Amino acid sequence: MCKTNVLSVPSARAPFEKTVMERRELRPNDILIEIKYCGICHSDIHNAFDEWGHGMFPMVPGHEMAGVVSAVGSEVMKFAVGDRVGVGCFVDSCGQCEYCLSGEEQYCTKGVINSYNSLDYDGNQTYGGYSQKIVVKEDFVVRIPDALDLDVASPLLCAGITTYSPLKHWNIGPGKKVAIVGMGGLGHLAVQYAHALGAEVTVLSQSLNKKEEALSFEADHYFATSDSATFTALANRFDLILNTVSANLNVDAYLSMLRLDGTLVNVGAPSEPDQYHVFSLIMQRRSIAGSLVGGIRETQEMLDFSAQHGIAPKIEVIHADQVDEAFERIIRSDVRYRFVIDISTL
Amino acid sequence: MCKTNVLSVPSARAPFEKTVMERRELRPNDILIEIKYCGICHSDIHNAFDEWGHGMFPMVPGHEMAGVVSAVGSEVMKFAVGDRVGVGCFVDSCGQCEYCLSGEEQYCTKGVINSYNSLDYDGNQTYGGYSQKIVVKEDFVVRIPDALDLDVASPLLCAGITTYSPLKHWNIGPGKKVAIVGMGGLGHLAVQYAHALGAEVTVLSQSLNKKEEALSFEADHYFATSDSATFTALANRFDLILNTVSANLNVDAYLSMLRLDGTLVNVGAPSEPDQYHVFSLIMQRRSIAGSLVGGIRETQEMLDFSAQHGIAPKIEVIHADQVDEAFERIIRSDVRYRFVIDISTL
Repeated sequence: MCKTNVLSVPSARAPFEKTVMERRELRPNDILIEIKYCGICHSDIHNAFDEWGHGMFPMVPGHEMAGVVSAVGSEVMKFAVGDRVGVGCFVDSCGQCEYCLSGEEQYCTKGVINSYNSLDYDGNQTYGGYSQKIVVKEDFVVRIPDALDLDVASPLLCAGITTYSPLKHWNIGPGKKVAIVGMGGLGHLAVQYAHALGAEVTVLSQSLNKKEEALSFEADHYFATSDSATFTALANRFDLILNTVSANLNVDAYLSMLRLDGTLVNVGAPSEPDQYHVFSLIMQRRSIAGSLVGGIRETQEMLDFSAQHGIAPKIEVIHADQVDEAFERIIRSDVRYRFVIDISTL
Repeated sequence: MCKTNVLSVPSARAPFEKTVMERRELRPNDILIEIKYCGICHSDIHNAFDEWGHGMFPMVPGHEMAGVVSAVGSEVMKFAVGDRVGVGCFVDSCGQCEYCLSGEEQYCTKGVINSYNSLDYDGNQTYGGYSQKIVVKEDFVVRIPDALDLDVASPLLCAGITTYSPLKHWNIGPGKKVAIVGMGGLGHLAVQYAHALGAEVTVLSQSLNKKEEALSFEADHYFATSDSATFTALANRFDLILNTVSANLNVDAYLSMLRLDGTLVNVGAPSEPDQYHVFSLIMQRRSIAGSLVGGIRETQEMLDFSAQHGIAPKIEVIHADQVDEAFERIIRSDVRYRFVIDISTL
């Protein structure tokens, strides 16, 4: 066992506290990681505020961890002390079901073990990356390419893979027209991936405020959804609309912008249900879908792809004592585009 | 021009009247068809009752026509007098858009011309198959294989292709698990197609009433959706759920029965919106989709497939003066499984 400083939430919506907790003794396939940076994901807020239910307190959020290996278990083969590594949204899965075997551990039939706010297979609660150290099974650790700084790499472990995976799954490439809904932490990465994959990229944002920045991320077009003319102008246009916004949308209006066999993919989840008219789907054989992060193999692929194409989130690095304030700023969309905690300040 | 006896609805919800109207002069690519049988589709009721809006009255419903060619235009190449033919849901499309060119005329970007209650490109209202004669462009006519009687063939032109097309589009075949929701006019055909394509077929019907019949159509399993245990027992099971019911469903409950990348495809359209929680989609990358009949080429394929596999609807042949009563019976689900009008009684 080793002690580690953490930022923990004692109860739903309570301010963060700096406390100390213990990480498990290294098992043969475990790695001890010194976390250097941890990104803040909107889902950290949903969980810390217990908006999705099932909140386990005290809670240590954080599933966008970038750091350095500081010790390895006796049977670890893939990593050595000093390696630059990352850990994302989950830290274990059954390893035996068809989904685990095909590298889609996030859909494990036994239930994936989330990096925090989850009960591990041994019955112990998991605690995430707002923490100086973490112990993780090597199979759930990825390598961060040298070309990526650890601070900008950290948000890729959730925001990056969450947007990269559906673009790959729905075969986005040259000749495809993609719309990205929302220019936030996820959206500004989605624009970069869709462009790098060769698609024509349109940003759909509430206002025109982020137009210049979107174009700087290589978006081809930008429209404000507050203007109803947008929906008419873009009717039947897109192969894929990737919705990164967690608020309820006028789903029918968004569906109307999909061409034949187009798909509206949601990666954010509002707590209230969405509504749609079946006719909106039938008329052009359209689909509404969802996508959950990505598997470990694909997460490694995403990191390598990001390094190769110079894709990086725009981040604001903060100190550990600024996390409560960062939560407030995320809630009012006052961040461009992702907060990253400098764990050395913990 | 030629006169024809028709069954027409003078205004929304009014009883049918036998009247006489004229069909257009044969153009070079037109065919004159003596309709022998016309199936009754639930959408005939929605239209005749003006439940979907846009009702044009007087209206002659009917888009499941089976008959015999009685004259051909000067340039007709594909058909000759005496040929057994069918006409389905649409009678023209632009012929030039990418969807028309790929044989998916139903999604024509200019707008497909429906067999009735539609304005043709020449501005004239279309009148459907509750009629002794109809004039149709040869490209929108299909050949009815000798192995299919005209009466059982007629419902295939809508109910058949509506269920066959999505099963093909979503690659249903051996190793796939398919659920058919609803054992009505569409559902009892969907069961037969899914079985013939090699899938394991489960029927999901409100009660156990139709279990024996479903098994006689080669369903492998049958569950009642009035029993909430059904949804637990079938969690994460199906690759495809084909929903043939036009009523609002508990979409989340149905989604929970889909495995990874499974799709809930709707071919019926309730007038009120459906609701879903995005989490139901995200958790197994599930989709909700819709599908609209099928193209002309695929309709021919469906007829040939039906003949080859002995697939036929179970029908109740009625006289022209029984259509009002048949509508009432369809509304209270008192038909097994499809009414067909014997047009010789008109």
